[in-house]
Amino acid sequence: MVNIAVLGYGTVGSGVVEVIRTNPESINKKAGDEIHVKYVLDLRDFPGDPVQEILVHDFDVILNDPEVKIVVEVMGGVEPAYTFVKKCLLAGKSVCTSNKELVAKHGPELLKIARENNINFLFEASVGGGIPIIRPLNSSLTADEILEITGILNGTTNFILTKMAQEGWEFDAALKKAQELGYAERNPEADVEGYDACRKIAILSSLAFGDHVDFEEIYTEGISKITAKDIAYAKEMNYAVKLLASSKREDEQYYAMVAPFLVPPTHPLYAVNDVFNAIFVKGNVLGDVMFYGSGAGKLPTASAVVSDVVDATKHLHCNIMSFWSSRKLGLTKVDKAVRRFFVRVPDGTDAKAVFGDIDEVRVDAIGGEFGFITQPMSEEAFREKCEKIQILSSIRLL
Amino acid sequence: MVNIAVLGYGTVGSGVVEVIRTNPESINKKAGDEIHVKYVLDLRDFPGDPVQEILVHDFDVILNDPEVKIVVEVMGGVEPAYTFVKKCLLAGKSVCTSNKELVAKHGPELLKIARENNINFLFEASVGGGIPIIRPLNSSLTADEILEITGILNGTTNFILTKMAQEGWEFDAALKKAQELGYAERNPEADVEGYDACRKIAILSSLAFGDHVDFEEIYTEGISKITAKDIAYAKEMNYAVKLLASSKREDEQYYAMVAPFLVPPTHPLYAVNDVFNAIFVKGNVLGDVMFYGSGAGKLPTASAVVSDVVDATKHLHCNIMSFWSSRKLGLTKVDKAVRRFFVRVPDGTDAKAVFGDIDEVRVDAIGGEFGFITQPMSEEAFREKCEKIQILSSIRLL
Repeated sequence: MVNIAVLGYGTVGSGVVEVIRTNPESINKKAGDEIHVKYVLDLRDFPGDPVQEILVHDFDVILNDPEVKIVVEVMGGVEPAYTFVKKCLLAGKSVCTSNKELVAKHGPELLKIARENNINFLFEASVGGGIPIIRPLNSSLTADEILEITGILNGTTNFILTKMAQEGWEFDAALKKAQELGYAERNPEADVEGYDACRKIAILSSLAFGDHVDFEEIYTEGISKITAKDIAYAKEMNYAVKLLASSKREDEQYYAMVAPFLVPPTHPLYAVNDVFNAIFVKGNVLGDVMFYGSGAGKLPTASAVVSDVVDATKHLHCNIMSFWSSRKLGLTKVDKAVRRFFVRVPDGTDAKAVFGDIDEVRVDAIGGEFGFITQPMSEEAFREKCEKIQILSSIRLL
Repeated sequence: MVNIAVLGYGTVGSGVVEVIRTNPESINKKAGDEIHVKYVLDLRDFPGDPVQEILVHDFDVILNDPEVKIVVEVMGGVEPAYTFVKKCLLAGKSVCTSNKELVAKHGPELLKIARENNINFLFEASVGGGIPIIRPLNSSLTADEILEITGILNGTTNFILTKMAQEGWEFDAALKKAQELGYAERNPEADVEGYDACRKIAILSSLAFGDHVDFEEIYTEGISKITAKDIAYAKEMNYAVKLLASSKREDEQYYAMVAPFLVPPTHPLYAVNDVFNAIFVKGNVLGDVMFYGSGAGKLPTASAVVSDVVDATKHLHCNIMSFWSSRKLGLTKVDKAVRRFFVRVPDGTDAKAVFGDIDEVRVDAIGGEFGFITQPMSEEAFREKCEKIQILSSIRLL
């Protein structure tokens, strides 16, 4: 029997307990041992909930119990999660977490402690909810040099953009709907401004490239400025607008960014709608693969956490996650990245004088302006050109 | 240093050597050891190719060399692959293979030998080419009971169906194009009649359900009877026609089949086109996930084989693949499966008398007939009803 403790009995924490109680037979078979939840830590009480019997309010009870071999951290936020997780690892307990803030900020240090203690720090659920992506990056895509990771990593914004496209709504109306359905927080900033996606792409990039990508260095732009008009032009051109978190390696230069992009129908991310997430990966020999699924939600996220618990159980004294050094990866400034841009300008603008040969795009219902797609150019060159004319809006092309 | 031998220097075998020579640094880092190709076995000679220096014509050289710890089998076909692989495993050498015929037919026995010898029999490349699916099923989706696996597992047929939809071609024209481009064999039977997809879904189902699914018991229907008219109706209704290989678990009944299906635009498999493959998996807590990528091709397939070599190197004396028993899984007859069907009938047919309330579908360019979609019913009930009227064609709905 392997005893585990769950830190935090919120949405994901209660999901973890539920998943283990739903599929005990198959989980124990795959783990090769019986997984037993010995403690749940939460400051609150849950009278009437069977969890009450194993509930503790004092973290030290868990830390000091040598029977607890695996700790699940699903509290979220950097503190006290960081302090608790570090203490557990130093005490020789493996940790499985869904906490992207923690992993993005302290991943290299916690991985190092796990390595030194021959235990595991696992975080499948920190990116893409239930979608297997951390473990595939770590143990499936091992024959390749990863050239690109581009993901729809935030379900809230994908839902908002999908609704805007399907219903013709403005951003505020779609956000309100997302809040009503419980897909968006009352304070939606972390989602809609791209901060959530930024931490997730930092984690994926660090794993893919082997060195630490600091999330604070990733250029991040959200979707709150996207309008119904922008979406109408995108539909006219048969593109979808998606908030993409992307990192690329080109000639030993590394780029990373989070921003809205126009995605063509030929790209597999084009059809990823509603709250679904997907992660597109390009390897130098593998070519393109994509992983798709529920990027959030109680049970999908809990499923990913429990798959980590199974793996930690199978590898109680054997470190299995090790390709993320604490050496910092220098990112090239986004200024240098070359791509095409979609631009909206008022009627009468001499766009050709600035951008050369362009094709005007017009949407029947929108008067007084037109749009066009530029030739490929650097972000820097694009910004310089934009200063010469009046721009209504612009969106990058994938 | 870990010495490996490659059995077969065809497309995949030469790909394996190329991948190892392309990414030696990252592969060795991830394997934790230097992977060295000591021998390549082939009956042919390759004068001028650097492989000539390590080429052997006698399998016993490899079998009897205790330095060879891992053998890559990429010859294809059941014999002599089966004899060679079994001898290698019994001699304590791990085996990585791309050979779906071998795995579908002898998987349980070879896995058992590997388990007993504390080595590994790995076969990531046998399904879905470069798409990671075997390892995720084995080590990522471990918190779930798998309820369904539905895949587009054959790139040739997906290319043919895509061309038929895009160009309005008949099956023969699309097949000819696939042959010209090297996507289809001169004898295309294994692909177009679904035999290839059948072996692959047998492997995936065995892994997902834990017991052995015999590919010979899977109802298998190909795409050679699909016509341009069928596709025109599908497009009219906004469906895509896809050759699906699917297995399901419902109330402890297991169903498996390969057949063309109408896929709605809301399903993630709808947008999987050309030679791409994808595997959709439903777990009881995870919900829906999908894995997408290149289902064939020299380098993608070789990438999957080499990822197995990396895993085998990391686990030289530790068996890691173990959820496929040799106990046979009893499949429920497809007769009992309940679904909706699309049917084409000649004008004047009293379809309502037989199928109840239906909506007629007509395609402008096709006269003298109409189509409709039935209510959900068992395959058996559907066949009985079909005997009462003249049917031009029918396709199942996903």
